[in-house]
Amino acid sequence: MVDIATRVHNHNWKIDPIVRSLIDTDFYKLLMCQSVFRNKPETTVTFSLINRSTSVRLADLIDEGELREQLDHVRSLSLSRGESTWLRGNMFYGKRQMFRPDFMEWFEALRLPPYHLEKRDGQYELTFEGSWPEVMLWEIPALAVLMELRSRAVLKGMGKFELQVLYARAMTRLWEKIERLKGLETLKIADFGTRRRHSFLWQDWCVQAMQEGLGQTFIGTSNCRIAMKRDIEAIGTNAHELPMVYSALAESDAELAQAPYQVLADWHEEHDGNLRIILPDTYGTEGFLRNAPDWLTTWTGIRIDSGDPAQGAETAIRWWKARGEDPTQKLVIFSDGLDVEKIEELHRQFHGRVKVSFGWGTMLTNDFRGLAGDRLAPFSLVCKAVSANGRPTVKLSDNPNKAMGPPAEIARYKRVFGVGEQKAVEVVV
Amino acid sequence: MVDIATRVHNHNWKIDPIVRSLIDTDFYKLLMCQSVFRNKPETTVTFSLINRSTSVRLADLIDEGELREQLDHVRSLSLSRGESTWLRGNMFYGKRQMFRPDFMEWFEALRLPPYHLEKRDGQYELTFEGSWPEVMLWEIPALAVLMELRSRAVLKGMGKFELQVLYARAMTRLWEKIERLKGLETLKIADFGTRRRHSFLWQDWCVQAMQEGLGQTFIGTSNCRIAMKRDIEAIGTNAHELPMVYSALAESDAELAQAPYQVLADWHEEHDGNLRIILPDTYGTEGFLRNAPDWLTTWTGIRIDSGDPAQGAETAIRWWKARGEDPTQKLVIFSDGLDVEKIEELHRQFHGRVKVSFGWGTMLTNDFRGLAGDRLAPFSLVCKAVSANGRPTVKLSDNPNKAMGPPAEIARYKRVFGVGEQKAVEVVV
Repeated sequence: MVDIATRVHNHNWKIDPIVRSLIDTDFYKLLMCQSVFRNKPETTVTFSLINRSTSVRLADLIDEGELREQLDHVRSLSLSRGESTWLRGNMFYGKRQMFRPDFMEWFEALRLPPYHLEKRDGQYELTFEGSWPEVMLWEIPALAVLMELRSRAVLKGMGKFELQVLYARAMTRLWEKIERLKGLETLKIADFGTRRRHSFLWQDWCVQAMQEGLGQTFIGTSNCRIAMKRDIEAIGTNAHELPMVYSALAESDAELAQAPYQVLADWHEEHDGNLRIILPDTYGTEGFLRNAPDWLTTWTGIRIDSGDPAQGAETAIRWWKARGEDPTQKLVIFSDGLDVEKIEELHRQFHGRVKVSFGWGTMLTNDFRGLAGDRLAPFSLVCKAVSANGRPTVKLSDNPNKAMGPPAEIARYKRVFGVGEQKAVEVVV
Repeated sequence: MVDIATRVHNHNWKIDPIVRSLIDTDFYKLLMCQSVFRNKPETTVTFSLINRSTSVRLADLIDEGELREQLDHVRSLSLSRGESTWLRGNMFYGKRQMFRPDFMEWFEALRLPPYHLEKRDGQYELTFEGSWPEVMLWEIPALAVLMELRSRAVLKGMGKFELQVLYARAMTRLWEKIERLKGLETLKIADFGTRRRHSFLWQDWCVQAMQEGLGQTFIGTSNCRIAMKRDIEAIGTNAHELPMVYSALAESDAELAQAPYQVLADWHEEHDGNLRIILPDTYGTEGFLRNAPDWLTTWTGIRIDSGDPAQGAETAIRWWKARGEDPTQKLVIFSDGLDVEKIEELHRQFHGRVKVSFGWGTMLTNDFRGLAGDRLAPFSLVCKAVSANGRPTVKLSDNPNKAMGPPAEIARYKRVFGVGEQKAVEVVV
């Protein structure tokens, strides 16, 4: 039986929207947004899209009109009643009313601010400028729109069965990964793959496959929309944009040196438990931990997001021990460039020594390498805060290939944070 | 949007029928049925299911009640108006009105006759007895029902995503085969996989994948229902049951020696072109060709269905040359135990020397080897005429592993047809 209504409905879409909900975004964006809304609501920021894979010429692949339609569609979204109810009523990490009523009222009225789009050298220059709590919510949908439009551009020329086999291959590949992960006792793993997913529907499939294949080992997804739809835990804490913007706002080198700790002091007040996770690498993990105030050692854990992950975890373990903490009671979250081999290796190395958890991103939700030549392979697209109140932001991280900011400012930050020699690690995604 | 009507409809099925149409069968069964209906309508035959893969204990796997439901459902089927119109109006091999009005009237009124079912030693004994033109139409649906019930029994315990990945793997495997076949210029290939298919829906998928992947190289399917549904050519000529029954009816050794030629003499009257295909191996290809009347050399081609296929084709080429025919104008159809490697090899060897065509069966529509352990691997199930008017039938073929019949009768047939030493070839499917 043909469902005529569905068919007519589908044919009447002006576009096939990529982002259909304001909460089709990472949970930590909302947590950070609430923190910013409370602590720095007046800050003006600029976010900018940066394609680190320059060989992928997005402006040649993606039609500007289609891109504008998708971005305009995102601007038309607002929080639905059901989404608002879910955010207000849900229990996150065992806590009710994670989102305060004043924040929810603001969020319910929110529409995303305008974007600025230009083509240059085969790439899109896409920037967002305005109030920090508003602009910051563009990051994930902007990335998801560009990633999926690129997928669609490549898929456009394929036949129906060629397409079906393409997805069959991707499904098989993911399932083989899941079957390998099944072998790891005590594994805890979450989906962190929203931003660079192949597509929304594919991410949704991946999450469900993880649910069925891994059971309790799969602890949740960073994507609020999918968490709501599939009735699973939304996962996340905080990201580099907080120390980056706080640091850009610092009036002196002394204030700059304290900025990353000020971020966590503000965070400390609001959150506890699994939300008290240190992200130490913005300006070098070693220096950050060396100079950290004692109250940070009581935090639940640490997230390793750049540099050599094993080395980062060893550094954290040494730090906890030096400060009199028991590492076996601490959580280490790995979230940078993970795939099955790396997960197995890190799990083997750290299981039992600390509590380990994995935030698996692009290679979970976009491993189409080699499936249409390499035309669908994931690539390194980010959307970052590049300035705050007119001043440039800086990120160093533990990998110089991930550093961002004007060279003079990078030099100043390296001096202030005492960052020495760093080992470069190739950035694939 | 949920289509409530479809859902209610699906939930209201008493069973999920495997065979939903009397023409969900091989085209050659209908061609042969018409010939039998005209030439031997009074013959009483017994068809019997034979599982040559005794390690697959069908009666342990498949519930008897479910099997009876499916077989009863087949007995409830009759030719629909649309199917009748398609058979009456279609052009097969360039000829209209392939099916005569008296046959169509009989077929429109037909219901399949009763079956007899018993369990013995972990196997089902399933037999059909009655008028030849009626009983013969049980062969394909009986096999398809048993094959699919076995698939369902294995799939029953699997999760939703495990299932999806299973099919993803099978799709990927078939597509890789299709991509290899794309490399063969001038290939002509058809689906002959109805009888031992994994399931109806899977065969339908395979046919569509062949259509998209191979284009004109894919010349059609033996399955009438799918040919009708997908608007492609129905393919087929004749099978062993004709010489087997004719031979069983022979009153003397002299009549027996002539029986296989009498079959083709009856066929010759009715058909021409692509339907004049010799199936020479029922009682040994060598002897059959040696003693064949001259009018058979003018036939369009030969089908190789047992023994070493390259050797069979070489025998045919030598025979045509010896009788003054030009082999390059003749068609050789390979249809026994084919998979991609064998197809490539035979194509390489015979392309240009004769017209070559392939009838690809079980390894097209049921290659689930290794996908659920080996619990879904295809196996060698056949449904054959075992007696006619109370006398046993005999098949020798070019492979002693495919021989059938009482030993004394096999010895007599070998003597009458001058069959010497034969090379045994393992029968997988």
